[in-house]
Amino acid sequence: MTKRNPHMARLSANYLFPEINLRKRQFLAQHPEVHLISLGIGDTTEPIPPFITRALTEGAAKLGTREGYTGYGPEQGEQSLREQIASKIYQNKVPAEDIFISDGAKCDLGRVQMLFGNEASIAVQDPAYPVYIDGSIIQGIKTIVPMPCNPENNFFPCLEALSRTDLIYFCSPNNPTGVAATKTQLQQLISFAKANRSIIIFDSAYAHYIQDPSMPKSIFEIDGAQEVAIELGSFSKIAGFTGVRLGWSVVPEALKFDDGSSVKADWKRVMSTIFNGASNISQCGGQAILTETGWKEVEALTTFYMENTRLIRDTMRRLGYEVFGGENAPYLWVRFKGRHSWDVFQEFLEKFHVVTTPGIGFGPEGESFIRLTAFGHRENVLLALDRMRDGKT
Amino acid sequence: MTKRNPHMARLSANYLFPEINLRKRQFLAQHPEVHLISLGIGDTTEPIPPFITRALTEGAAKLGTREGYTGYGPEQGEQSLREQIASKIYQNKVPAEDIFISDGAKCDLGRVQMLFGNEASIAVQDPAYPVYIDGSIIQGIKTIVPMPCNPENNFFPCLEALSRTDLIYFCSPNNPTGVAATKTQLQQLISFAKANRSIIIFDSAYAHYIQDPSMPKSIFEIDGAQEVAIELGSFSKIAGFTGVRLGWSVVPEALKFDDGSSVKADWKRVMSTIFNGASNISQCGGQAILTETGWKEVEALTTFYMENTRLIRDTMRRLGYEVFGGENAPYLWVRFKGRHSWDVFQEFLEKFHVVTTPGIGFGPEGESFIRLTAFGHRENVLLALDRMRDGKT
Repeated sequence: MTKRNPHMARLSANYLFPEINLRKRQFLAQHPEVHLISLGIGDTTEPIPPFITRALTEGAAKLGTREGYTGYGPEQGEQSLREQIASKIYQNKVPAEDIFISDGAKCDLGRVQMLFGNEASIAVQDPAYPVYIDGSIIQGIKTIVPMPCNPENNFFPCLEALSRTDLIYFCSPNNPTGVAATKTQLQQLISFAKANRSIIIFDSAYAHYIQDPSMPKSIFEIDGAQEVAIELGSFSKIAGFTGVRLGWSVVPEALKFDDGSSVKADWKRVMSTIFNGASNISQCGGQAILTETGWKEVEALTTFYMENTRLIRDTMRRLGYEVFGGENAPYLWVRFKGRHSWDVFQEFLEKFHVVTTPGIGFGPEGESFIRLTAFGHRENVLLALDRMRDGKT
Repeated sequence: MTKRNPHMARLSANYLFPEINLRKRQFLAQHPEVHLISLGIGDTTEPIPPFITRALTEGAAKLGTREGYTGYGPEQGEQSLREQIASKIYQNKVPAEDIFISDGAKCDLGRVQMLFGNEASIAVQDPAYPVYIDGSIIQGIKTIVPMPCNPENNFFPCLEALSRTDLIYFCSPNNPTGVAATKTQLQQLISFAKANRSIIIFDSAYAHYIQDPSMPKSIFEIDGAQEVAIELGSFSKIAGFTGVRLGWSVVPEALKFDDGSSVKADWKRVMSTIFNGASNISQCGGQAILTETGWKEVEALTTFYMENTRLIRDTMRRLGYEVFGGENAPYLWVRFKGRHSWDVFQEFLEKFHVVTTPGIGFGPEGESFIRLTAFGHRENVLLALDRMRDGKT
């Protein structure tokens, strides 16, 4: 009889968002008159700007014409889109040949995990996006080394104390802490990976939110990264494409396995075997984002969300909260020393009618933190802050 | 140093389409004046019909409005689309709760392979779509049992001779043979799976092309399938959505592992961990396909491609070719007894200036066959047939 995949059984229950929803429902059942505001949402809320929307509608419309119809696209994605990413996102520090278009970073993570198989050992920031660990467990990974990131180490792992792993997942700016790594820190990370012959899986999904011009938006801004890193990028948070689905990966030609064989060649094979390209309509949208007009539109979107972030950060700091992150990312990481994150979650829910995300959902180091996000309509953000300022709803 | 995934090394080189392209290029280099016609293409060529195209453009346009904007969708896909699939495709023999929307069957296959892990044994039709085997090898599957399908067994495997496996991949109508299984055959397959406690992965990507009303379009038309089968469906060949990316899977509540645990629960976990939904725009297109107007449009598309199939089949039979398939699928499987498929490919290329697909690319049983497809503009199909009729170009 067909056995359950033993790796699936090793997954811990995914209780975070179900538990949040349960607590919301329970609260609303007792207080049906309450208007809850979410500052916990990790999803974009503002419409796609007009020039980019028009490219999407035109991309769809041309599929209805004989001249404009396209079926399966090129295996690595539209060549022109790959060239635009190379020039606009990477200032040609990365060649178009090393770029693969995808339906988003989460899906690419699953395929990266399939690429490296079940014998690889991995290191993961703690706290981190849960998919690094969950996807690896499904794939059969046994050795998972946490890299604690907290205020005491400025949210950068203590590399000297870290044992060697085959892969190092590193997300900057980090979700959930909202803290981005400096150039020096990324140089240290690359040196560490080189010394250990590890491969860095660099998640740059929030790079577009970096405001400090001295901070790298890509690991490929650092010398030597080409030999040790893969980068996963996404249009989701750049342009409100979370539902449209569009992202990319960079797997450099120079990246090799211990036997000298090409990581990119294997990646190409994985991508062409169990993936079939991002939607042609979404790719038209991506092309528009990377034009001059489109880029101005998405810059304005980012400015909007970062103004939300600033409002939340400044208000909460004035109110005496211990707030981290939020300078270069749409995420804020708020500490409540000595308390449990679920208790803080419950307090915000009951006292301010504000929904947050308990930090413990992102790893043991997240205990006593909550995550707040900048995604939301302005009036909701302001109302939530009013409630906190008044100390009650 | 990071090791290459040993499973990747077990993949045989993917030479089929690269080799076809190489031979085309070589021929055109010597005969630059020639207009080659492809009867080998596995991709749709006709535009998306107007009502469905309009739904795609409207789905894109509303993302530019505050009221119409959506980010991440529900984990299993839009509820209304799942309900439409349940009623239109499955006449409610399958509940919407068991349906998961995806970006296509190829991608779902990769996730199914991840679901069952690397310890499962599998059986695969020979010839078959190469992804069943290649994706399984990447995942680390060791035991792969071929199920020879040929004119001698009416393209249905001899189940009595077959050893037990955990999974049985079964595609009907089959790509490349173009032959669909009868109700009796599927009943036998289900009985076999029940007796062996195997799970059938039923690929119904071409089911919409079935013309014979007595033939099942879904394995769930057969009693008992709910306890032994998963089905993967696709809008690609129904509506020319190969580039738009939209499909679905059905994982019945009643399907269990040997420990009694739910396959669907694990599938839900895989889908929510390493997938993030089909594009919201594509899903709007899917909803339009399943309306009365949209369905009429796609019926007309199918009729068009099946008329191509009929033209090729009838002409070739009149010319004395031994043609199989093509009654209930857009694929024709032509035998050249005693010859190698690559030699036949070369002959068609040189003599008729027609590109075909060598059968050997789909498995050992494909040797001495070529695959022809019905996807193509009518005038090209007619021209290719003229060339064959004239015995020369």
